Amino acid sequence: MHNVPNTDGPNVDAALPTVSVSIYPKGGLDVLSREEVARLKDASAGGMHELLRRCALAVLTSGSASDDPRAARELYPDFDIEVLQQDRGIRIDLHNAPAMAFVDGRIIRGVAELLFATVRDLAYAAIELGPEYAEELETTTGITDAVFRVLRNARVLQPVEPNLVVCWGGHSISRDEYLYTKEVGYALGLRGIDICTGCGPGAMKGPMKGATIAHAKQRKTRTRYIGITEPGIIAAESPNPIVNHLVIMPDIEKRLEAFVRMAHGIIVFPGGVGTAEEILYLLGILLREENRDIEFPLVFTGPVSAAPYFEQIDKFIRLTLGDEAAKRYRIITGDCEEVAKYMTRGIRKVREQRIAQKDSFFFNWGLHIPLTFQQPFEPTHEAMAALDLHHGRKSHELAADLRRAFSGIVAGNVKEPGMKRIEEHGPFKIHGAPDMMASLDALLRAFVEQRRMKIAGAYQPCYEVVG
Amino acid sequence: MHNVPNTDGPNVDAALPTVSVSIYPKGGLDVLSREEVARLKDASAGGMHELLRRCALAVLTSGSASDDPRAARELYPDFDIEVLQQDRGIRIDLHNAPAMAFVDGRIIRGVAELLFATVRDLAYAAIELGPEYAEELETTTGITDAVFRVLRNARVLQPVEPNLVVCWGGHSISRDEYLYTKEVGYALGLRGIDICTGCGPGAMKGPMKGATIAHAKQRKTRTRYIGITEPGIIAAESPNPIVNHLVIMPDIEKRLEAFVRMAHGIIVFPGGVGTAEEILYLLGILLREENRDIEFPLVFTGPVSAAPYFEQIDKFIRLTLGDEAAKRYRIITGDCEEVAKYMTRGIRKVREQRIAQKDSFFFNWGLHIPLTFQQPFEPTHEAMAALDLHHGRKSHELAADLRRAFSGIVAGNVKEPGMKRIEEHGPFKIHGAPDMMASLDALLRAFVEQRRMKIAGAYQPCYEVVG
Amino acid sequence: MHNVPNTDGPNVDAALPTVSVSIYPKGGLDVLSREEVARLKDASAGGMHELLRRCALAVLTSGSASDDPRAARELYPDFDIEVLQQDRGIRIDLHNAPAMAFVDGRIIRGVAELLFATVRDLAYAAIELGPEYAEELETTTGITDAVFRVLRNARVLQPVEPNLVVCWGGHSISRDEYLYTKEVGYALGLRGIDICTGCGPGAMKGPMKGATIAHAKQRKTRTRYIGITEPGIIAAESPNPIVNHLVIMPDIEKRLEAFVRMAHGIIVFPGGVGTAEEILYLLGILLREENRDIEFPLVFTGPVSAAPYFEQIDKFIRLTLGDEAAKRYRIITGDCEEVAKYMTRGIRKVREQRIAQKDSFFFNWGLHIPLTFQQPFEPTHEAMAALDLHHGRKSHELAADLRRAFSGIVAGNVKEPGMKRIEEHGPFKIHGAPDMMASLDALLRAFVEQRRMKIAGAYQPCYEVVG
Amino acid sequence: MHNVPNTDGPNVDAALPTVSVSIYPKGGLDVLSREEVARLKDASAGGMHELLRRCALAVLTSGSASDDPRAARELYPDFDIEVLQQDRGIRIDLHNAPAMAFVDGRIIRGVAELLFATVRDLAYAAIELGPEYAEELETTTGITDAVFRVLRNARVLQPVEPNLVVCWGGHSISRDEYLYTKEVGYALGLRGIDICTGCGPGAMKGPMKGATIAHAKQRKTRTRYIGITEPGIIAAESPNPIVNHLVIMPDIEKRLEAFVRMAHGIIVFPGGVGTAEEILYLLGILLREENRDIEFPLVFTGPVSAAPYFEQIDKFIRLTLGDEAAKRYRIITGDCEEVAKYMTRGIRKVREQRIAQKDSFFFNWGLHIPLTFQQPFEPTHEAMAALDLHHGRKSHELAADLRRAFSGIVAGNVKEPGMKRIEEHGPFKIHGAPDMMASLDALLRAFVEQRRMKIAGAYQPCYEVVG
Repeated sequence: MHNVPNTDGPNVDAALPTVSVSIYPKGGLDVLSREEVARLKDASAGGMHELLRRCALAVLTSGSASDDPRAARELYPDFDIEVLQQDRGIRIDLHNAPAMAFVDGRIIRGVAELLFATVRDLAYAAIELGPEYAEELETTTGITDAVFRVLRNARVLQPVEPNLVVCWGGHSISRDEYLYTKEVGYALGLRGIDICTGCGPGAMKGPMKGATIAHAKQRKTRTRYIGITEPGIIAAESPNPIVNHLVIMPDIEKRLEAFVRMAHGIIVFPGGVGTAEEILYLLGILLREENRDIEFPLVFTGPVSAAPYFEQIDKFIRLTLGDEAAKRYRIITGDCEEVAKYMTRGIRKVREQRIAQKDSFFFNWGLHIPLTFQQPFEPTHEAMAALDLHHGRKSHELAADLRRAFSGIVAGNVKEPGMKRIEEHGPFKIHGAPDMMASLDALLRAFVEQRRMKIAGAYQPCYEVVG
Repeated sequence: MHNVPNTDGPNVDAALPTVSVSIYPKGGLDVLSREEVARLKDASAGGMHELLRRCALAVLTSGSASDDPRAARELYPDFDIEVLQQDRGIRIDLHNAPAMAFVDGRIIRGVAELLFATVRDLAYAAIELGPEYAEELETTTGITDAVFRVLRNARVLQPVEPNLVVCWGGHSISRDEYLYTKEVGYALGLRGIDICTGCGPGAMKGPMKGATIAHAKQRKTRTRYIGITEPGIIAAESPNPIVNHLVIMPDIEKRLEAFVRMAHGIIVFPGGVGTAEEILYLLGILLREENRDIEFPLVFTGPVSAAPYFEQIDKFIRLTLGDEAAKRYRIITGDCEEVAKYMTRGIRKVREQRIAQKDSFFFNWGLHIPLTFQQPFEPTHEAMAALDLHHGRKSHELAADLRRAFSGIVAGNVKEPGMKRIEEHGPFKIHGAPDMMASLDALLRAFVEQRRMKIAGAYQPCYEVVG
Repeated sequence: MHNVPNTDGPNVDAALPTVSVSIYPKGGLDVLSREEVARLKDASAGGMHELLRRCALAVLTSGSASDDPRAARELYPDFDIEVLQQDRGIRIDLHNAPAMAFVDGRIIRGVAELLFATVRDLAYAAIELGPEYAEELETTTGITDAVFRVLRNARVLQPVEPNLVVCWGGHSISRDEYLYTKEVGYALGLRGIDICTGCGPGAMKGPMKGATIAHAKQRKTRTRYIGITEPGIIAAESPNPIVNHLVIMPDIEKRLEAFVRMAHGIIVFPGGVGTAEEILYLLGILLREENRDIEFPLVFTGPVSAAPYFEQIDKFIRLTLGDEAAKRYRIITGDCEEVAKYMTRGIRKVREQRIAQKDSFFFNWGLHIPLTFQQPFEPTHEAMAALDLHHGRKSHELAADLRRAFSGIVAGNVKEPGMKRIEEHGPFKIHGAPDMMASLDALLRAFVEQRRMKIAGAYQPCYEVVG
Repeated sequence: MHNVPNTDGPNVDAALPTVSVSIYPKGGLDVLSREEVARLKDASAGGMHELLRRCALAVLTSGSASDDPRAARELYPDFDIEVLQQDRGIRIDLHNAPAMAFVDGRIIRGVAELLFATVRDLAYAAIELGPEYAEELETTTGITDAVFRVLRNARVLQPVEPNLVVCWGGHSISRDEYLYTKEVGYALGLRGIDICTGCGPGAMKGPMKGATIAHAKQRKTRTRYIGITEPGIIAAESPNPIVNHLVIMPDIEKRLEAFVRMAHGIIVFPGGVGTAEEILYLLGILLREENRDIEFPLVFTGPVSAAPYFEQIDKFIRLTLGDEAAKRYRIITGDCEEVAKYMTRGIRKVREQRIAQKDSFFFNWGLHIPLTFQQPFEPTHEAMAALDLHHGRKSHELAADLRRAFSGIVAGNVKEPGMKRIEEHGPFKIHGAPDMMASLDALLRAFVEQRRMKIAGAYQPCYEVVG
């Protein structure tokens, strides 16, 4: 919106204005050894290059009207990025970069910071978490340690007072819902709370925007708008322009772990299937015996109009995971103030518990996350057939399987490889209790109706229940 | 928008939630002598009390949905403010203050700062510019000195690099125009420019909002969003929530002088008759022989749709003040980038000139403002009949009379005392050249059509031309 | 010590190296109105010029080996200072200034700050406390207000936590005593205490030096080493190089009032007659009924070797003002730690009292200082004969007369006008009780013996006791 | 000097006052993973414990009158330090620590910082440079990389403007010489230069002390007084209290490399055999063909009284390494200003060269340091007999052998293992040109005479020249 390029003629079919410059990183990438610079250069020219190019373009078009970085790739086909070695350090050359990231030929400082963060995180993953560490990265401890190190390297772990709320929710929500996320962000910001989201648009942008205005009114100068993404997502969800700390985690599961280990509380706004998965991921963890006593304020909230949405989610959770599970969250609709107050109280308890247990403020070491939640789930027909969606199981195990079921169904409906599998081998066979499966089906149909899941043509379930 | 009070029931006829607290000022009001505290207390309890109450309420409802502080006065009828003396300093007691200015019972820090500024400036005027200084305040030098002292006391005169752009324009403009002012503010902010406006909504808020986002992206931490108002205006135009430096000048003329002495450049957005008056005020000054060589970048700008508006203004100026006058400004429509670039270049020249002439960066001492521009104009029939709107006069003198004519006509059309005079004594008789008067009439009719001047019923000129 | 000028040949009879430059003030003197600049320029060229020249030279030779600014005036006979007006503000031209204040042609920043402070304070006195305010300056309230305003204008009144200890004592003390003052400063500095002294050498420098090292070790960055002087004294006691806030009060009495109003506690090191006068000034105030309950930690301290000195002072006070007076101070010898701990405890009580009484932290408004202590004492024969040094008087009145007696005796012994009077009219006749006068005589003889009072030839009392 | 413990009775044979506390690290040690905390705890309890205890005690007695930490170990026999793991991070327990490091039971902040630095560096060496990295640490690149990483981990590599001068010289020098080092530090500090030394007393403390005062006068707030030591040396040279950045390098050779890679210029004050070795180390590097064009300002300086000392050094260098070698340094005596000006000019050239060659400001990657200079030299009879001290060799190779000769001779004269070897096998046989050996002998005798090398009894050469 803000970067209307200053072109004379019509834009149709014409390449957009671009800029080619060299920039020199600061803050973390500015004190490297010669060898580190060399490794970074090699990595960025090798396997990581295409990834870097894609992420960099997403960052450089941050804040553009279009939220679709794929469009960005078509609009800037000649964009390229090179990391070069100089004795003094590294230099980043941008070729044909979007002019909107520049002012009078100089890159906007905030954009440059996000760009350096991108290089930093991709390089860290390529160099410090490369194949030679594969073994270590297959243990619970190893994975948690990797998450910790990526976050620390990104300098987002700070020994300050607990005040970080993670906000989840859809990237394409109604205007009504978007304004509500802003209001909540404003109410949080007035209370000195910092925001962490998935860094895209919609429910990931609104709370940051509201908090920005509130922080300005409270004259808070050290503000954190942390965006945590991963290479596959940043390509679809360009960081919004408010993000001042960007972290690119190596994969989706580490991103989820980063959220729950950094959060002092989580707010869930309305969203689609992705949001449902996130809810089940979090409940699956919180319902474990080991985590029973851990303070973790969790609120589902939206405008009054979103009440039916959360009722349905709530019903589904109660049916599948039991009323016990519902004690872990609170649903608040149409009351931003109450959300903020509830979070403030909850964070106070988190603080006390961390002190009592001598745990750190900046990383929730005490939370037990089992390996099954840390490993990716590949939705093959075999894997789907192995799910066990019946009553009587331990709720955290059922939650894990439900999350997998969601993941597989989404894949079968909207993701290319999944859809292909369905075409070839027919619908997934899922073993599940009839009432559970009916509830799940209802939930999915509601998502489709509310346009929270985009389907080409009429909705056609990609699975059969086999009891 | 952001402060939806947390009420359960309907608002109709119900008192809005309020808060009563004591607060202790910081920054300027915190190191006072006992005598100063006493004088401040006396002043605030005496003649200045009603003014203080009104201004304080405007500040406390800053950022509310309604831009109408008169509404505020009706919504918070029991609001009161008291300044109390304590040995240690002053205490401000707020009674039944709007809850929207508070978070969990504590005042929002930014609001508190604006409140302290209000007390500070009203007290300064009451104590340091009181009746005993009347004589001194009747000379050009004395008035300029008073303007300087009020601004210094408000700590807005800072010996920093020239980067302050004053934005003028209407408070009720179209959405299209409002978005454009934001875009301009954004383009200015990206270039490190700070904003000063009349501190109300519309064209006074948009540039600050755009600059805020740009400053955040450029990681500019020392930002200035200066709002300059006066007691009569703040009652109608509550400071927008972005303002972080508020100054209440004693009267309209000192406010205008504050704008032009602090500005390193001025941007005029579309507005109503008030904006036209401001333009004539500024041109009247810039056209003086003494000010001929003073660098003063001045741009009239708006979206493409505003082009006809500025064409008409331009035509009127050329007809009345001559083409020479038109050299003092540049009209740019639909090109925010160009506005920002033009201003940047202009400010660079201002900087060079100030250095060459050893003038200060923070106050334009070199600008000659004659007493006639510093004194208020009372639009009586005699005063209006004394105007001399003919070709052949010195352009700055003609500009002064035109400004007065505008002022009188507005009064006769929309201000109560003026309308009464017209009722009693019939229309003003204005001596003017026919072409000039025709052009003026056309301009006024256009304002009415474009809803830039609000008239009850059909427009009826309140003057006759007597040649 | 640190500024050994880099001369090739012998210094004898040779002019020392000098520098001539123009400098531009910052911080307080940089945002002046044209009129203020003009008044400042006029004042500095008029009556205040010689004073300014003398004070400026003292500042420019700060930290030189010699503590004798009179020597400085002989060494730099051609030094001059001019304050010039420019539209942009003021410029200070230094002609033939001591090279030791410069590095590679640029003035040392700390020296420049002291120089600006000098111009600032002399100008303030000349302009704001000039003859036209004489009447106002003859009342208790008026004088206290003037003290407050000079200090505020010098920006040394800050609303921070109470932590300011004033140190009094001689400028020429033994090495043993000097090292002890450093140790005390070190012990205070380790506890976060800031130091205020008369800003000369000896006991005025040692505590600051010790505190500097302690503050560095405690990584305290906002440190205050406040030097309060007056035009007559700065000529004899150049500010030591550690002082980072210099205030030049208009006269000796206002300087004393500044000390006691700013102090949260006072430490008295060994000194001469001047120190004795200061002690009597302070006790005279503290013994007043109105001040009876005011917390005011007061310690007399020195190395073990100074024990006899304080015993004698103590004896004299007990004899003249009674044991009650001795309750107001504590004598500690040879124990720096205890001094610092005692002060820390005392300041804590001061803090509590100020809060309870809602008095400010930065200025002791609650302390009652009667006019007699604010007015200068002129030691004529009549005035001396009017003293009434007998038992049975109210102790604060007796303290006032004792202080005057001391003042007169010093004048008669070492100050030129006083010595002349004695020559012409014979010794002062003092009415006093024999035991008191004997004790006073003993004290004076001890000062002479210990070289705390410098006498040419054998000591010869300049007064007679007339009972 | 500053920490006279507050004891009542005599100290003889009595244990000194001690304190036992737990402290929590900040800055670098406060964001550790659980695993890192565990490794740190293990290392500090294992092989590194005694080293840690010794270094910690040196730090805790920093600034004590005695410069002999061995004395410290005797005075505080029960001192111990433990690093403990807590979920939240690490805790350091001090048992029976010297009371002088505490104020009212709380550790002095600067001392705590040095203590954390000690834990940090010893842990880094133990964990990151442990035996498993031995191979890597045997190459030139590997060693340089290790030096870089230790320094970066200590946060002393900062991308700021070049302004770091390394000062070398003896720890026990004459008062005259010590005052001169202070004067030089003062002259450097006035010019904004930061100081790096070996962090002990004498010539390592003086320049820091002088710079501290100058920095205060110039109001420089970001100051660096970097002390670089190694475990063997810190035991003999406790960091002086001014050091605000302490780095403990793993061994002497890495410490030397750290000095020359971080320095933008080096000043050599008078010193003993150690200083002579340092000079030969540096010249050996600078004389290499690869380093011929590298800007590296190098000054030998002392008071006028030190002129003969430097003449002798100069003569020895010219005789052995040729007049070419003497072009690399400049000798200045009795002129601190000139030293500072020469350094300032030299650093300006260093800056230009680094920019031209795109080398970093904070680490001199361009300097070629061959492996022979990075490896320790063990002075056995065989190694000494292998030296080749004849004319006609390449000067940098001869410099390397001369440095080794010095090292061996010192060992044979004053270090226990060396003295034993001499006793057992007789004097070293050194192959050397007669004139060179005579000059070396003269130099050594002069050191003995000037008490720069401490010998028990009469000096007896520990070597024979075999031509």
